[in-house]
Order: sequence, then structure tokens, then C-alpha cells
Amino acid sequence: MSVTLLSSMLPKEADAALIHSAQNRRYFTSFVSSEGYLLVTREEAFLVVDGRYWEAARQQAKNCQVVPARSFSAELTRLVTQKNLHTILMEGSGFTLNEAGRVQEMLSSCACTLVTTPELDCLINKQRLLKTEEEIASMLKAQMITEDALKATLPLIREGVSEEEIALELEYRMRRKGAQGVSFDLIVISGEKTSMPHGVPGRRTIRSGDLITFDIGALVDGYHSDMTRTYAFGKINEKQKRVYQTVLQAQQRGLDAVRSGVTASTVDKAARSYIEQAGYSGMFPHSTGHGVGLDIHEGPSVSACGDTILESGMVITVEPGVYLPGEFGVRIEDMVVVTASGCLNLASLPKELTIL
Amino acid sequence: MSVTLLSSMLPKEADAALIHSAQNRRYFTSFVSSEGYLLVTREEAFLVVDGRYWEAARQQAKNCQVVPARSFSAELTRLVTQKNLHTILMEGSGFTLNEAGRVQEMLSSCACTLVTTPELDCLINKQRLLKTEEEIASMLKAQMITEDALKATLPLIREGVSEEEIALELEYRMRRKGAQGVSFDLIVISGEKTSMPHGVPGRRTIRSGDLITFDIGALVDGYHSDMTRTYAFGKINEKQKRVYQTVLQAQQRGLDAVRSGVTASTVDKAARSYIEQAGYSGMFPHSTGHGVGLDIHEGPSVSACGDTILESGMVITVEPGVYLPGEFGVRIEDMVVVTASGCLNLASLPKELTIL
Repeated sequence: MSVTLLSSMLPKEADAALIHSAQNRRYFTSFVSSEGYLLVTREEAFLVVDGRYWEAARQQAKNCQVVPARSFSAELTRLVTQKNLHTILMEGSGFTLNEAGRVQEMLSSCACTLVTTPELDCLINKQRLLKTEEEIASMLKAQMITEDALKATLPLIREGVSEEEIALELEYRMRRKGAQGVSFDLIVISGEKTSMPHGVPGRRTIRSGDLITFDIGALVDGYHSDMTRTYAFGKINEKQKRVYQTVLQAQQRGLDAVRSGVTASTVDKAARSYIEQAGYSGMFPHSTGHGVGLDIHEGPSVSACGDTILESGMVITVEPGVYLPGEFGVRIEDMVVVTASGCLNLASLPKELTIL
Repeated sequence: MSVTLLSSMLPKEADAALIHSAQNRRYFTSFVSSEGYLLVTREEAFLVVDGRYWEAARQQAKNCQVVPARSFSAELTRLVTQKNLHTILMEGSGFTLNEAGRVQEMLSSCACTLVTTPELDCLINKQRLLKTEEEIASMLKAQMITEDALKATLPLIREGVSEEEIALELEYRMRRKGAQGVSFDLIVISGEKTSMPHGVPGRRTIRSGDLITFDIGALVDGYHSDMTRTYAFGKINEKQKRVYQTVLQAQQRGLDAVRSGVTASTVDKAARSYIEQAGYSGMFPHSTGHGVGLDIHEGPSVSACGDTILESGMVITVEPGVYLPGEFGVRIEDMVVVTASGCLNLASLPKELTIL
């Protein structure tokens, strides 16, 4: 969002930063394109784009001057020379080795050094942790579309329908309701497959006694949503019910622990210790959550070693689970905004055990 | 496909190649995973994967030894030391700068040099140009799904339906018919928007007199298909008909020029010169085609400067177009396999001007 903030945060040995990833170009300029370079100096920012984007970038790009390029090499060389840039940090996640080699070649006539440390990425990621109201609005919209689509899909579930059919119908409904796409390949798994935290929907068909896990999300304005619900189909047994209630309680402990000023690991610990005390040690093999935004997984990590101090405006997931190999698993996940007094839960779909 | 071939092609100064891109890991081992390293020495190949993939990789990965890793660093260090590897080529398109930095760190205790030239990519890309029968079978299946889905979608088109609705219905039908996804964001554009070679489906609704361009493809087993058809809706004028016939003829000239032994640029020239002679100079601003495979765009480039000599087993598109800014455009595209005597057209959907 704030190129000015990035400019002012540049390490003192650097004259500029060169950004190439689609997400970060979008993040700083609000402009969406499949290629381009954002050059941020201490005073200015330049978005260099090819002929496909000249007109659109001039109309839409924010916080920067648009530089229409017939040749990236010519325009980048001109800017680097004219602005007298000697040390340029490169976005470590934004260039492949080949792409970095090409930039080196493009700027071969300039007296500048391209520095490839992960430092620039750290600065940017830190800024991206804190969401603006506009970003949160997009994520809320994505979440609402996800919930509407799930509600419209649940009535289709009956004995004999396959996981992949349900996943496809769900995605179709998200798109009909205005999602630009899905946040990730939707997870709709059932029965013994629910014991795999990242199972893939397949031809397995729903039968009575199944748990069904939906780990789903939609994409709106480039922003992701992320939610998990586990439902019962037909008659489930006491063990399944006990695990469900354990995970539901653990998730509530996690949510209760969220507030600005606490360390992310506190949230993990709150959920994890409840699960361990309930007798399911070692059956919760992933972290309790993660940040969400332009990437589906971004900072902060909500894990045992998550040392980020939560601040108002961060958006994180709280998603504990218990997985019994060969039997079944349960995971429940909400996406929440950290606030001074706790959190604002962007998910509103009920979490009481529901039998479809 | 052939790790042996890659081993034998390693430049003499290199002891091994380190491959990281998902496509090339899949290409050489047939194994699909979201992370992992393929280390190819002069004698052997090792696929190093984390806990999520141990079991599946052991069952499915071909042409390599599977190395289950708790720590990538430990296993890569062990292999590099044990196999006495000193100079390792890194896949230039397979590592971001950050990822390359992490590998450098992982191997910091080894006496080896990581070389980051694009050379390894060139070797691999050259191998990937020639498709096996199995690869062609996947692409044919993707093409057949695309055609079936398009045929099932065309009856939905009527005045007032939007481009994005048509695109979504088409994608939904591809998926129902077994596609794992789409080859790229489907292009369904209409009316004056057809003058943009890469327009994006939007809210514009179909009306009489429109041309509608479908540039579409499906994904099967990781392989892409690619096809373009332009249809007329309602009464179109003489100018639209003339441009359509010009593009159709140009495409046939392009197809007729395909055969093993000719330079790719010959195909471009055959299509392009027909369009120029018909009076549409400067209105065909892209190349005539490209290779297709695990990537939607790969070698060879079928352009004016495409110097690859076509060989039997290459799969290319032939897709000339004419675009009249502010008015309309027409593009027609087939995906074909190069053969000794010409080509095998994987597309079978008619190309005569069709009025919906």
C-alpha cells in the first residue's frame, strides 16, 4: 500500500528496490498485470510496463509514475542512470535465477550493483502483515461468498455423491456469486480420508457415518479467504463426536487467546494444550494458523515458534485439528482480524456439530 | 522423461544438475508434488521429498531413487558429499533468488559450487520439445474434453448472456468431463472486444452482429490443450465475413507448411504473408504459434525469428489472427503434432464460418 513507507524503510546502503512479483506490484500500486517492474527509490516509485498495459496502468496505478516501455532494458537503464542509483536491492522471492540474470544483463551498461538478500522481502512482508480496511473488506467479501456457496452446496450431498463432484459444485457456486477464483484447490474429503490434513478430493463417495471436511476459500480483488468446517453425514459414533467437541473447544480457546500485544505462539499454545490435555497428543501435526492476504499463506505464523507479536489489523486463521490415522479427522477454522480487545471473526457459519 | 538422457547431456564441467520446478520434477519422474528436489548425477537420479510424499513417491516416482527427507539440508548434504559432487548446475527457472540462497545455505558445509547459468534449462527445454506418445495422448484427451465442453456450451449463448457467464459455464463443463482444470484463464470475448488478442471475459453481453472469440483449453495429467474458434452471432456484415475467410485461409496455409525438417519461421511466414497480401498488414501483431506441453507456452516459437527446425513429435499451435482496433478481430487456432509428411491435427471442431 505505502510505497512511501517502503522508500523510508530502505536500508541505508541501498539507493533503490526492484520489485517484480505480481503480488507486490499489485500491493504497492493496486495495478494488476502479468509482467512489469516496480523501481522504488528514496524519493519516487516507477512502474515500468509493456505495451499491453500502458493505457490501463496510466488510468489505474496508484502511488507511482507509470513508465511505458517498448524495451524494459532501455527504460530501466535510463531510470537507473538518470536517478543515479548505485545499489539496488532485488526482491528475493520475485525473481527466478534466470529472471535475475536477465535484469543483470539489461543493466549491464549501468554502474550499479544488484544486491540479492532476502532483506527487502522481510521489509515488505512486515508491511503486508497489517491490513487496511479496504483489504479486510475484500477478504470479508471472499468469506461471505464462500459461506453462501457452501450453504447452497450442502443440500446436494447425499449417499453416493463423490468428493470431487461436491468440490466442483462448490467452486462453480463461488464463481457464480462473484469470486474471481478459489483461494486454493478446494479440500472436500470424507470418511477415513479426513485423517489427512491436506487430502485431495477424489472419487470416494459419501456414505452414512462419514465425517466430511471442507477446507475452502474464495478469491476477491486478489485477496483470499480461508475456512474449514467438518460435518457429519448420517449416524456418527461417540468417538467421532468426542473428537469433534474437543476440536471445537480447542478452536474456541485459540480464538479467545487472540488479541493485540500477545505473541502468535500464545494462540497456538491455547489450542494445542487443550487438545493434548484431552488425550490427543501427537494427533495435531500442523500449526494452529497463519496470516492470510494477497497470499493464502503469509505472515504471521501461528505456531509454537511463532514469535510475531500480534497487532490490530493482522488477519490470521485459527484452525486446530485432530487426526486419527486410518479412522477420521476433524478440523475447524475461522479467519479473524486481530483487534485491541480480541478479534473480529470474519466467519459466521455455525460450528456446532451438524448432521447433514 | 529420460533422466538418463539428461545425465548424458550434462556439460563436461558439471557433476550434477539440481532441478526444483514442479514441472520438471514431474517431467523426469512422473511424480507430482508441491515441493522437492531432483538431483541428477552422471550415473543416478535422486528425488528428495518431505514426509507428505514419502509413501506416494515410493509407489509412483519413475527413473529415480526416492530419498525420504526429514531435513532437505541433511539429505542434500549427504548426497553431495557421498557422490563427491563439486560442480552442480542449478535450474535457472526453478529457483527464486531466495530459494537459491536457501540451497546455498543448506549445502554450506559441502565443498561444492552451485552454478547458475541458463544452460541446464536449455538442455531440458530441448528434450521437452519432443513429446512421447503418452504425452500426446494426454494432450489429445485435453483437446477432446475442450471440444465436448464447447459443443455443450454453445446452445446456452443467446442475446443478453455475458462473456463471463459463458466462460464459467464452459469451464464447469470441462471439469465435469474430467479436466483437472483449465489451461489458462479462458478467453471468451465478443463484439469490439475481439480486436484485443488477449481480452478478458467481462460483463459485456452478446448481441446480434457480434463475433465471439473462444481461446480455450483444458488440463489433463498436467498437460495442456489450446484451441481458438471465432463464431458469429446473428447477422454479421461483409467485412467481418471477409476477415474471417482471410484468417481461415491463412491458418490453412500455416498448417500446410508444417512438417519435420522445416524451420518454425516457415510456418509463420506462410500464414503471415497470406494475411499481408490480403491487405491486413500490421493487423496480425503476434506470432503464429508456440509449443504446448506441461507449460501452455513452451518451445518452439513459431514466429518470424523462430529458428527451431521442426521435428516429428513436436506439438505446436497454428493461430493467425486479424485485429481491427475498435471494430472486431478473428483468430483461429489448432494444436498439431509435427510428422514427417505434415502434421496430425489434434483439433477436429469445424472451422467454416458458423452462425450461432
